[in-house]
Amino acid sequence: MDEPPIGDVWGEMIRDAYAVRTGRGPRPLAGGRVPRPVIEVIERDDGLINGAPADHYLNEPADWQPHDHRALRLCRGQVLDIGTGAGRAALELQRRGMAVTGLDTSPGAIDVARRRGLRDTVATTIDAYASRAATRYDTFLLLGNNLGLLEGAERAPAFLAALSRLAKPGARIVAQGTDPYGTNDPVHVSYHRRNRERGRIGGQLRLRLRYRLLATEWFDYLNCSVEELEKLLAGTGWRLNSIDDADRPYYLAVMELMK
Amino acid sequence: MDEPPIGDVWGEMIRDAYAVRTGRGPRPLAGGRVPRPVIEVIERDDGLINGAPADHYLNEPADWQPHDHRALRLCRGQVLDIGTGAGRAALELQRRGMAVTGLDTSPGAIDVARRRGLRDTVATTIDAYASRAATRYDTFLLLGNNLGLLEGAERAPAFLAALSRLAKPGARIVAQGTDPYGTNDPVHVSYHRRNRERGRIGGQLRLRLRYRLLATEWFDYLNCSVEELEKLLAGTGWRLNSIDDADRPYYLAVMELMK
Repeated sequence: MDEPPIGDVWGEMIRDAYAVRTGRGPRPLAGGRVPRPVIEVIERDDGLINGAPADHYLNEPADWQPHDHRALRLCRGQVLDIGTGAGRAALELQRRGMAVTGLDTSPGAIDVARRRGLRDTVATTIDAYASRAATRYDTFLLLGNNLGLLEGAERAPAFLAALSRLAKPGARIVAQGTDPYGTNDPVHVSYHRRNRERGRIGGQLRLRLRYRLLATEWFDYLNCSVEELEKLLAGTGWRLNSIDDADRPYYLAVMELMK
Repeated sequence: MDEPPIGDVWGEMIRDAYAVRTGRGPRPLAGGRVPRPVIEVIERDDGLINGAPADHYLNEPADWQPHDHRALRLCRGQVLDIGTGAGRAALELQRRGMAVTGLDTSPGAIDVARRRGLRDTVATTIDAYASRAATRYDTFLLLGNNLGLLEGAERAPAFLAALSRLAKPGARIVAQGTDPYGTNDPVHVSYHRRNRERGRIGGQLRLRLRYRLLATEWFDYLNCSVEELEKLLAGTGWRLNSIDDADRPYYLAVMELMK
């Protein structure tokens, strides 16, 4: 098979999930008639392929994980929701009267977030936004496992520096991560070992997403332990303030900008 | 990416779906702790990739599609359930006191069907079974879209000849198919056209399945109209007896062996 063309996988998937949930817009159909659930396909560079239903990206608060609710209670002031997707968290903050900007690199996802009512949106990378935005933020929100956007030891300092440029004094990051090391599945254990042998963090996943005819480029996405997170923060100006791991293996990390 | 290794994709997927549903056996977990739904990943040779939840292969009759119930009422005598998978339909026939054999090419799927209580099973191809079996059948059951096992004009005569060799006089095939032509999705419309340009049936899909680290070989799987089915039957000794298309685009075809 040829390599699939690169495109806005995330945007097309969110748009279809929105159409299936709401009936607005054309839906992917089986046999031209029967709606089919929208599934996110995730390939890892060891050949592992997984599918996961995409509908949860549109979940209302009543259907959220408990840690999502706790994360929102940690937000204060002006909030930048990074990787906002369909705007799930940003819309809820907006409903509560908070000042929130939704940022996503996917134009298609931002389009859905706007159709759902999110008013303040940015469709670009955090780096591009940090170099041009006038707004400064009190809270950077990374939900849906988006602590993973730190990627690894190479990318994390630049990512965190972009947040520093966008930060008001005393700003915080509220991020949800996953500790991947509680497994004894040999597929994952050997993947973590292979990563370490190559000088990468064990849970530094090399992934691409696929949806229908399109693929993303390969990218790094980080699942790490709290200890690994603390190492990544060293020298960045951000320090770990608290960890809430009541929903292990998931955790919420609050990081604060040092004076 | 390298090509994934070939293996019993179907068997591993059914085994994991069974483990997730029943808690028996190791389950695929996220972060080593949270069960994740088992998703079947289907690649088509135009690069289309789709995921579909696999749990329905284990559905009890209460959760079946209406046409599955109607199909079972069309079974009589000694039944061969072809592509039995986890034994969903065969187990229900067995519960009703009917004589039923479950056949599947996947050893892993047959293992799950046996663990679920299916007594008479065969793990081989229909061709191999036809050349050695002493049992003769009154009904050949092809549910779960398994009319698709006819593959196309090249394979259908051999497949139907194998059934003829296994048939008692007056035997019937009860098969569920899908008419794929009710769509106006350009991805599918152009796929059907490309197929026809190559001398294939429009809905003659070229697929492979993937699950975790494994892939199947590429294979043909047929979605066809009733008219196309009738053409495939010409000269095979089987004739179309009835069509039930109350659940369009899905239909039930009953075919009978001519004297």
